[in-house]
Amino acid sequence: MIVTTVHIWVKEEHVDAFIKASIENHNNSILESGNMRFDILQHHDDPTQFTFYEAYETEAAAAAHKKTTHYLLWRATVADWMAQARKGVKHHVLAPKELRKW
Amino acid sequence: MIVTTVHIWVKEEHVDAFIKASIENHNNSILESGNMRFDILQHHDDPTQFTFYEAYETEAAAAAHKKTTHYLLWRATVADWMAQARKGVKHHVLAPKELRKW
Repeated sequence: MIVTTVHIWVKEEHVDAFIKASIENHNNSILESGNMRFDILQHHDDPTQFTFYEAYETEAAAAAHKKTTHYLLWRATVADWMAQARKGVKHHVLAPKELRKW
Repeated sequence: MIVTTVHIWVKEEHVDAFIKASIENHNNSILESGNMRFDILQHHDDPTQFTFYEAYETEAAAAAHKKTTHYLLWRATVADWMAQARKGVKHHVLAPKELRKW
């Protein structure tokens, strides 16, 4: 299992459009083979910051996400809305270990 | 719904003990009323860094976690093992919105 947290900074005037595009990306990503979660979160203290929580069964499934049409569309759509470069952090899962709990 | 990501830096010599104490905390926390997830993750590129992903149904349930015996025990146990102060970030949930998907 692999979980990537992606930290995203959005220009204030594009926050609403970013949310719309990201929910569309969520709706498609959760249908991918090997996807376990794809949560879209907004920071409580700063609505221009977001965290994506992307959990996949394998490295291969996580890598395949970046070749999907919906990811490439999302990436192109939001490109000019970023206030700074996104930052992804890869993680091993220590708990829960059972696939059915994801 | 509220999700807190907690960023944790551990002194290298205490990583194994930290993992053991944190899995114990996970096992108890997922039994709390209002808890939806309590994932324990280790950074892929730096095994001394950890992320906890703590999802609760309400602010009250998230606050109640900090009064539980297992949280207080974990906090006291790991106190001297921290390489720097923990950093928690609170989030709103944008997707998925359905409770059953947590």
